[in-house]
Amino acid sequence: MARQSFVFACHERPDGDCLGAALAMARAFRGLGKDVTVLSRDPVPEHYRFLPESETVLSTTPRRDFDVGVLVDSDMPKRVGDAAEAVTGARMLACVDHHLSSEEFGEVRIVDRAVSSTCELVVDLFDANDVPIDRETATMLLAGIIFDTGGFRYSNASARTFEIVSRLAGLGASPSAIAREVFESRPLRSVKLLGRALSSMQASDDGRIVWAQITCADYRELDADDADTEGIVNSVAAVKGPQVAILFRETEPGTVRVSLRSREGFDVNQVARVFDGGGHAAAAGCTLEGALEEAKSRVIEEVRRWMGS
Amino acid sequence: MARQSFVFACHERPDGDCLGAALAMARAFRGLGKDVTVLSRDPVPEHYRFLPESETVLSTTPRRDFDVGVLVDSDMPKRVGDAAEAVTGARMLACVDHHLSSEEFGEVRIVDRAVSSTCELVVDLFDANDVPIDRETATMLLAGIIFDTGGFRYSNASARTFEIVSRLAGLGASPSAIAREVFESRPLRSVKLLGRALSSMQASDDGRIVWAQITCADYRELDADDADTEGIVNSVAAVKGPQVAILFRETEPGTVRVSLRSREGFDVNQVARVFDGGGHAAAAGCTLEGALEEAKSRVIEEVRRWMGS
Repeated sequence: MARQSFVFACHERPDGDCLGAALAMARAFRGLGKDVTVLSRDPVPEHYRFLPESETVLSTTPRRDFDVGVLVDSDMPKRVGDAAEAVTGARMLACVDHHLSSEEFGEVRIVDRAVSSTCELVVDLFDANDVPIDRETATMLLAGIIFDTGGFRYSNASARTFEIVSRLAGLGASPSAIAREVFESRPLRSVKLLGRALSSMQASDDGRIVWAQITCADYRELDADDADTEGIVNSVAAVKGPQVAILFRETEPGTVRVSLRSREGFDVNQVARVFDGGGHAAAAGCTLEGALEEAKSRVIEEVRRWMGS
Repeated sequence: MARQSFVFACHERPDGDCLGAALAMARAFRGLGKDVTVLSRDPVPEHYRFLPESETVLSTTPRRDFDVGVLVDSDMPKRVGDAAEAVTGARMLACVDHHLSSEEFGEVRIVDRAVSSTCELVVDLFDANDVPIDRETATMLLAGIIFDTGGFRYSNASARTFEIVSRLAGLGASPSAIAREVFESRPLRSVKLLGRALSSMQASDDGRIVWAQITCADYRELDADDADTEGIVNSVAAVKGPQVAILFRETEPGTVRVSLRSREGFDVNQVARVFDGGGHAAAAGCTLEGALEEAKSRVIEEVRRWMGS
């Protein structure tokens, strides 16, 4: 009789939580003698290649005969991209997730919306099934918790989360080493780009809106590209006072990408949608054609309009 | 008989750890019916005013008759500034600290270099003496741990640290709310100062050292002062590659304050001590007299010397 086979599928643009949970479950099932495949349509980002066994992640597989297909950190098969067929072709479908969702995908649903991350949920799952956690597995799981709590800065990091982190650290996973890989390994050009953006910061007279910009000249002079701007809007938003923070990126002459962040319930998604963009109430984005100064005026004006000021 | 009196003295430019520990001990001793004063020569920075009872901190006192004077998060009376006289004038001297130091100040020394922070040490101290920790005290202590571990990003955040954090969170302290106050509530001038510092970043040819600077002109043009530079060195250190990151602050013409951070075991305390400064292996500081460029050359040269390159 053939070994039981499992396929774990990451969502598109895989992050630390999805990779950590998929790799941890894959390692556990391999340890139980199962035939295991981990799939991710998009490649493992460079700053997650420190994860043990991240090199085993495949971008695709021709197989459609898995016994169990598991969606990890997502319960929408469409978020899995090309890997969806391998999962939906499996004899049994499962999902392991902590997101809110309208769909109810999978015969086996291990979903808990109260935990910080899918990795935190996997710790519970391992405990309930007496699956031991070794140092490598602890590192995988801790990476997911660290990513999904924004390095323990979001309110989803609960007393229970910290208890689990303490345990994973005791098993040999290093919170500081993981945080450094995930959050503090920017190339110099990216840090200098952040510097230029923050130097450019301005606030509206009433202090309710702040914005920063990155120009074509900044990209060119620092030999940087748009991938180097990841996370910069969060630094713009880390200023005290304003309700809305905006980063304008002139990615090429005549094209301005706009990232919006809000606090205290202001809905930036409404603003982004005016310019055919979208997102969530607290984080949204859009792209405008035209000159940088014009794009700034239009977006700031729209924010003011929604503020009713 | 008069109530026993205590004075707790913060070091200059008080940070979250020193304030959290001093306020937590003050609250505990007040609860025991003692007469308690908390001193800090420099004002409580705006982003620490969320700390319960931070409004009780005095900048000075004429009293020299305290029963017990306690240096908090420092064992060098000179770091206490003007408050030193009130402490050294007390009948008994104590220090509660977690720093490496060459001095052995105080008749009562509660010093543990293995803990993340003075606040972590105070938790142990409270436990050993059956001092209960309420929600307010938990917030004070957690603020110190969060500040001194860089938001749990330094290697001093141990399994035991996270266990304590879990407990403090369970007592009602909010890690996410504290992290937001400590790290994400900077005044605009401070964020712009960060921007200028990061824009100025340079790396040595071999990539092992990076540095950034803040000049007198930067302070003046942004109407900022040295308190606005808190944490900037950590952003300088968040670049991928180098072993040592340095921030040079020309606080006034002819005075250059230097903050050093290291990775991978390089001991920046050794470097700081050459210039009569100090700190930890991974984080240290010193002050040089002279021009900015000269200070930069001297410190970078000294780092190179210790690197053996």
